[in-house]
Amino acid sequence: MTDVQQEGDDQSVSLHLLKQKMADFAKERNWDQFHSPRNLLLAMVGEVGELSEIFQWKGEVPKGLPDWKEDEKVHLGEELSDVLLYLVRLSDICGIDLGKAALRKVELNAIKYRASKNYGTNDDSTAEMCG
Amino acid sequence: MTDVQQEGDDQSVSLHLLKQKMADFAKERNWDQFHSPRNLLLAMVGEVGELSEIFQWKGEVPKGLPDWKEDEKVHLGEELSDVLLYLVRLSDICGIDLGKAALRKVELNAIKYRASKNYGTNDDSTAEMCG
Amino acid sequence: MTDVQQEGDDQSVSLHLLKQKMADFAKERNWDQFHSPRNLLLAMVGEVGELSEIFQWKGEVPKGLPDWKEDEKVHLGEELSDVLLYLVRLSDICGIDLGKAALRKVELNAIKYRASKNYGTNDDSTAEMCG
Amino acid sequence: MTDVQQEGDDQSVSLHLLKQKMADFAKERNWDQFHSPRNLLLAMVGEVGELSEIFQWKGEVPKGLPDWKEDEKVHLGEELSDVLLYLVRLSDICGIDLGKAALRKVELNAIKYRASKNYGTNDDSTAEMCG
Repeated sequence: MTDVQQEGDDQSVSLHLLKQKMADFAKERNWDQFHSPRNLLLAMVGEVGELSEIFQWKGEVPKGLPDWKEDEKVHLGEELSDVLLYLVRLSDICGIDLGKAALRKVELNAIKYRASKNYGTNDDSTAEMCG
Repeated sequence: MTDVQQEGDDQSVSLHLLKQKMADFAKERNWDQFHSPRNLLLAMVGEVGELSEIFQWKGEVPKGLPDWKEDEKVHLGEELSDVLLYLVRLSDICGIDLGKAALRKVELNAIKYRASKNYGTNDDSTAEMCG
Repeated sequence: MTDVQQEGDDQSVSLHLLKQKMADFAKERNWDQFHSPRNLLLAMVGEVGELSEIFQWKGEVPKGLPDWKEDEKVHLGEELSDVLLYLVRLSDICGIDLGKAALRKVELNAIKYRASKNYGTNDDSTAEMCG
Repeated sequence: MTDVQQEGDDQSVSLHLLKQKMADFAKERNWDQFHSPRNLLLAMVGEVGELSEIFQWKGEVPKGLPDWKEDEKVHLGEELSDVLLYLVRLSDICGIDLGKAALRKVELNAIKYRASKNYGTNDDSTAEMCG
């Protein structure tokens, strides 16, 4: 797979690619000095706040955001991305392989919440999903 | 690339793969009914809280977490993953292509913070990085 | 006003009283050493996460929580309190008079959002309220 | 106690006073329609994000913020206040007496973490403080 394909085809945007881009970005700007684990964590919390602000006065929002204007969706994509980019960078700085950890967590969740159990009920185990 | 390779090699864990796994997971458990945008957002905020709890009493933490026990790192990987999985699911439910949006945001950041500008200084633009 | 009245009558629970209780509490347990600004901030973020978990799978919730069980409301009160207590402690450790700052912010908001302007419309200024 | 004293003396800024000011503020602007529990919760998360942004690139910050400029402290006071005001409003809309709940939580914490136990150690119970 070529780099062009890799970046052009959304199906193949990998956590590894984003990690590498964030590392290069920080190095080129001499920002590694600011990228301590707790600095990055607080920066991520800041972005989660900006993401929340998009949804704060909207009441319940239906899936697919049918009534949102295009520029609102673009803005939403930017805030979701900011959370992701700091999350990827935080994981890298902590020495955690986020892709591997995420696949493992999906498997743990599959064991914890068996598909046959509690089918479609909102009981206590559902309430804790991914907790 | 085979599925086995895709899942076994951390370099190739893509956002698309995680999105698909989360969608299958929810469908098999009839959980789509709970996965509205604001439900998922609040679930993600809950996971950000659990991630913060890991760091809350530690004071400044050096890169690579040299003094952390193995089980603490495993726990950290799980909480980072929980944030990621809800972020991926939230993006999917909102109809946002998170991988594409993230690559675009990296490019926007590169324009906003040129590598030659403010090299290594912690000025206002640095303070707003990715904001 | 006597101390007994002060603690017994909810109308008079002051931020100063809570600040003093938190300071005494930490001193008696030798916890001042852990109460740095960023430790307390992350602890507060953790509590915001626990508060969000209460609301995460509920969809829209009507005012007054008419359908909630009594123990759910008690739990909610505890999580709201945890956020408040860390917020009060964080302010104290930072040397900020939270009560004075809050009254000042209410006044600033009153200037920013005049009662006669934008009456009942959800325009941009509303969206930024208290921002 | 007169109203003037009540507002002028920071020792007596009560949660009840702030609750009343927020209720009046919303009513005068016809904003009650926007103040649902989850709207207010997300607005509070947004303010927690803004508070975190103040601390995000600073590394560890000493108590009392000795090196901070006056305008930074004023800004901090505003963000702390925004979190408080939404927290007070959220509690009110949920029908929770925040002052009473907070005093009760302090008492519960005193039972959970006895002053004689774990004196000055950072063990598991400390790590969960107020959790």
